[in-house]
Amino acid sequence: MKKVRIGVIGAGRIGRMHAENLVFRVPEAEVVAVSDLRLEAAQACAAALGLAGAHKDHRPILDDKKIDAVLVCSSTDTHSLLIEEAAAAGKHIFCEKPIDFELARIDRALAAVKKAGVKLQIGFNRRFDHNFKRIRQAVAGGEIGKPWMLRITSRDPAPPPIEYVKVSGGIFLDMMIHDFDMARFLIGSEVEEVYTLAGVMVDPAIGKAGDLDTAIVSLKFANGVIGTIDNCRQAVFGYDQRAEVLGSQGMAATENDRPNTARISTARTVSEDLPLNFFLERYTESYVNEMKSFIRSVTEGRETEVGGLDGRMPVVIGKAARLSYDLKRPVKLSEIK
Amino acid sequence: MKKVRIGVIGAGRIGRMHAENLVFRVPEAEVVAVSDLRLEAAQACAAALGLAGAHKDHRPILDDKKIDAVLVCSSTDTHSLLIEEAAAAGKHIFCEKPIDFELARIDRALAAVKKAGVKLQIGFNRRFDHNFKRIRQAVAGGEIGKPWMLRITSRDPAPPPIEYVKVSGGIFLDMMIHDFDMARFLIGSEVEEVYTLAGVMVDPAIGKAGDLDTAIVSLKFANGVIGTIDNCRQAVFGYDQRAEVLGSQGMAATENDRPNTARISTARTVSEDLPLNFFLERYTESYVNEMKSFIRSVTEGRETEVGGLDGRMPVVIGKAARLSYDLKRPVKLSEIK
Amino acid sequence: MKKVRIGVIGAGRIGRMHAENLVFRVPEAEVVAVSDLRLEAAQACAAALGLAGAHKDHRPILDDKKIDAVLVCSSTDTHSLLIEEAAAAGKHIFCEKPIDFELARIDRALAAVKKAGVKLQIGFNRRFDHNFKRIRQAVAGGEIGKPWMLRITSRDPAPPPIEYVKVSGGIFLDMMIHDFDMARFLIGSEVEEVYTLAGVMVDPAIGKAGDLDTAIVSLKFANGVIGTIDNCRQAVFGYDQRAEVLGSQGMAATENDRPNTARISTARTVSEDLPLNFFLERYTESYVNEMKSFIRSVTEGRETEVGGLDGRMPVVIGKAARLSYDLKRPVKLSEIK
Amino acid sequence: MKKVRIGVIGAGRIGRMHAENLVFRVPEAEVVAVSDLRLEAAQACAAALGLAGAHKDHRPILDDKKIDAVLVCSSTDTHSLLIEEAAAAGKHIFCEKPIDFELARIDRALAAVKKAGVKLQIGFNRRFDHNFKRIRQAVAGGEIGKPWMLRITSRDPAPPPIEYVKVSGGIFLDMMIHDFDMARFLIGSEVEEVYTLAGVMVDPAIGKAGDLDTAIVSLKFANGVIGTIDNCRQAVFGYDQRAEVLGSQGMAATENDRPNTARISTARTVSEDLPLNFFLERYTESYVNEMKSFIRSVTEGRETEVGGLDGRMPVVIGKAARLSYDLKRPVKLSEIK
Repeated sequence: MKKVRIGVIGAGRIGRMHAENLVFRVPEAEVVAVSDLRLEAAQACAAALGLAGAHKDHRPILDDKKIDAVLVCSSTDTHSLLIEEAAAAGKHIFCEKPIDFELARIDRALAAVKKAGVKLQIGFNRRFDHNFKRIRQAVAGGEIGKPWMLRITSRDPAPPPIEYVKVSGGIFLDMMIHDFDMARFLIGSEVEEVYTLAGVMVDPAIGKAGDLDTAIVSLKFANGVIGTIDNCRQAVFGYDQRAEVLGSQGMAATENDRPNTARISTARTVSEDLPLNFFLERYTESYVNEMKSFIRSVTEGRETEVGGLDGRMPVVIGKAARLSYDLKRPVKLSEIK
Repeated sequence: MKKVRIGVIGAGRIGRMHAENLVFRVPEAEVVAVSDLRLEAAQACAAALGLAGAHKDHRPILDDKKIDAVLVCSSTDTHSLLIEEAAAAGKHIFCEKPIDFELARIDRALAAVKKAGVKLQIGFNRRFDHNFKRIRQAVAGGEIGKPWMLRITSRDPAPPPIEYVKVSGGIFLDMMIHDFDMARFLIGSEVEEVYTLAGVMVDPAIGKAGDLDTAIVSLKFANGVIGTIDNCRQAVFGYDQRAEVLGSQGMAATENDRPNTARISTARTVSEDLPLNFFLERYTESYVNEMKSFIRSVTEGRETEVGGLDGRMPVVIGKAARLSYDLKRPVKLSEIK
Repeated sequence: MKKVRIGVIGAGRIGRMHAENLVFRVPEAEVVAVSDLRLEAAQACAAALGLAGAHKDHRPILDDKKIDAVLVCSSTDTHSLLIEEAAAAGKHIFCEKPIDFELARIDRALAAVKKAGVKLQIGFNRRFDHNFKRIRQAVAGGEIGKPWMLRITSRDPAPPPIEYVKVSGGIFLDMMIHDFDMARFLIGSEVEEVYTLAGVMVDPAIGKAGDLDTAIVSLKFANGVIGTIDNCRQAVFGYDQRAEVLGSQGMAATENDRPNTARISTARTVSEDLPLNFFLERYTESYVNEMKSFIRSVTEGRETEVGGLDGRMPVVIGKAARLSYDLKRPVKLSEIK
Repeated sequence: MKKVRIGVIGAGRIGRMHAENLVFRVPEAEVVAVSDLRLEAAQACAAALGLAGAHKDHRPILDDKKIDAVLVCSSTDTHSLLIEEAAAAGKHIFCEKPIDFELARIDRALAAVKKAGVKLQIGFNRRFDHNFKRIRQAVAGGEIGKPWMLRITSRDPAPPPIEYVKVSGGIFLDMMIHDFDMARFLIGSEVEEVYTLAGVMVDPAIGKAGDLDTAIVSLKFANGVIGTIDNCRQAVFGYDQRAEVLGSQGMAATENDRPNTARISTARTVSEDLPLNFFLERYTESYVNEMKSFIRSVTEGRETEVGGLDGRMPVVIGKAARLSYDLKRPVKLSEIK
């Protein structure tokens, strides 16, 4: 079988991780080049992984006829244009979330993909996580009957630097966007309306930067399911990533992943080590699985598991969630243009 | 020590349970009489427990100078008047929840209690449950820092008969009222605003009766905490009673109680027996503990642990929750008169 | 239905607990008298529970024609003779474990019971515990196929006073005797051979008193099952009471009981409160259930659930376990005369 | 840093897995050649992993001056001679367990290693498992005080083919050998005496082949600790791999690893998916970690974490365990020559 030849655009933390996963864990792929505006980052990545090409600009990658697909791992503001360019160059595309914060730009990018007939997968890696996949399987397979209620909890161990917060797009588009995707994935229906309760509890500086750090969003789905997502920028015990669906015939719920199963009983307590601390430890395998899935979509010519609409809808929900907070009333997704 | 002499008004399921608990588990109390509009119920109860008096009317109980305190366990519509009468007779009062569905009647009852200077305890038994007490202890004792987010899940194993639903006051005043009390108890602050998402999922007949069977209420507290309560009239796996508080320094969360700790591993699954099925099994000890607490309030002359305001506020929240559903917008408690 | 009228011989901790359970929790029984060599103990018990009679000697109880059954809760050295006397007086008998440390005395007592045709139940309360009953149910009901391996763990929170150790009969007859009973109960087959590994780890004073404080006994059953029991006089985290059976079609295993289900997550650990500390908290309900079972045996005229042989065999196993330790080799039960 | 250049001897399942782990997960190593008596196996491995050399004989690997270290992954009967040859060739050696079934051959191999001054690591991968490492850390770090009792449970999902059983060395040298290593590792003291209870429960054919399929071995350690290991060739629910140490200040215990944390509650049970099924899934990361550790020993010039004595002692214990079963008495390790 011919390997899928990959170019990686953006050699930051996430781009380098995907490149490593492809090199070491996905035998069906071959990473041939990497680009980064900081050339030394591209060169370091290429050296470490034995890649043939390292570029400052992404054009050599798009111009390379032997490259089949690209990973867009550059900064968010470049995603939509890179999708357009890559699509025009006939490359299949894996793009980190979010596509963009502007719906018009997203739509232009999706139109370009459609026109070019290339594959597009968005980096909502949690769909490939063992725990959340198991809930989805229970819902889709009828193990718990018809779904009625959803609950997603998603809390970071500590807030990011305030400089990041300022350009992050805000808690709904930066952090909860993963959970909006998860909500659609688990329930298999579109969100129609949201209502947001939120506040600044972790750090006043986050509030000064115009953002919120703690939020509960209530969701109403097209199929009648109701649910909530709660986010907090700080859970001192670590990365808190759980979900639960109640249905007519039962419930499926997950707990956090732990580094080991040991329980230590002493004269004071029975205790366990803290859950896996953050996304690189917690979602390690999901990143590998999403790459495998993307590569299979290319080799098998089938739809990606997380397509363009899956990249667009969470942005719409995120905007609605913020608007609900600002207007202090429930907001329908149809209000977001 | 002189025993507290008790009269029980209402010999239905809950009245009889309290009487039994007092007789068998609370040595500091003595049940001397019981009344019930169905005289045979009062007589059966008296015979089974060896009580001296069994009456059709409650007046002999209120007129008995040797009786120190009464338990009001009759139908909800009689609670407020019985409180007024019992207070006028100088009896300490334990009253099942809710006091009433009308705030004016509640306020008249509370005024009567205040004027008479008697003790009043409302039957929010879950405050005396081992699990919820432990969360409250963690919050109040600072184990998890400043509270930020609350989640309460409360689901019944199966809906009550439709005839009961029709007179129940609706899901918010019949079922979620316990959770409104729990929310105030766990957080130690008043609820200021609610928003309700709800539907009829379990049984269309419940909808025809004008009620809802599945609901999520978002809460905003005076101290800034945000939270949710979810209720469902049917969780096929049993009584689902959990709570969780996230704070600045940690999280306290409880699981359901189980009939045993056994795990059975077979070639198909690792499984446990279902959680305790309903309130009589699940909250057995809490009912004993609330009686002990009431009796101690009387003997020690201190405030009851669940007083008149604790009886009034959940009714206000319940009315706001229903109004929010009807108006499809968040409702402040100050809107409820 | 006529109540079973009970006399309690011995008003120490365990006698008083049984009396209270009968009075408050077993409506089918009526405790009419109590005796204790320390008359004031008998009187205190009678006063607290409203019993008609309090005696120094047990004879008035045995002579009382209206008494149907007695509980033998006096010191171990008196058990066998009291069984003989009570049987001769035609009383049904509940006797605390062990019947005696001498097989000849046990056999004389059992012969007296047989001759009199009265019921005898031995106080192996753990058979009535929710967790161990569930394992037995899994084994007996075929949920895990044919049993192959057994493991029982039984550890006390702290060693008893050294004065008690000296007269206790040693770890095998005082503490592990419960587990020998449990082993027979769970597997439903007789033990044929034992091998003991043991030491003094908790406190050298226990060794000086001629006893051991930590022991593992390997068991071979008549039906081919193999297993182990481990005991330790000190588990600083509390009463450690677990069992596990592996079978051809699965495994049944229990965990310790906890005072609540709360989990507290902080920046350092995820922790739970310690297991229930000792037998009075841990086995509370089992004591009530064993009384109910005894009373039912009397009223229904059926065999008790824990009969004379069940009282004798654990003593034989305990003697074999000690002999194995002394001889440093496996010992067959047939070697114990 | 110069990479450690590796030759792999034996391209069966385990050899190929190590080679893959080195190629994809251990950047500090470079696999340059592989040999296998079945040349096509060596060639397939080399092709799949892009290795330069594929040989039928192992001599080219030992003769290659550029190769620093070898992995001995051939059949057990060749291990000791290959160690001798590799040591003579100045190669560092990683050898799969066991070194041999004959102590004389083991000793000759260890002498050769000592004389050559090369590193030797034995493939007891479980020492590198997250769960067992955590117990060892608790013991070594004093979290649970002085260790008193050990329990190891180790059960396979299903027995191997009977042809394998016949050449396996028997349950004690093939299967429980891992647990003997684990016992020494967790307690940090040598085993002095063993006693074995065992039987044929899973399959009579195993008995006809002269082996046992279910066994409990009691252990006495030099430092006074007592413990048990239980093995069974069949646990229908999957690979059952647990350990527990009780100490003077507490207990450390592990549970099985599961494929996900989901719990599914239905009207019948609350259930989880079965534990990871067998060693390749369960111990995946431990195999990577043991390779990393071996490579670090080479690059840092320090002792391996599992040395020659660690390879020899479990064989001695295994022989003693079998002898105890044959003689039906405890056996001291000093009896094994």
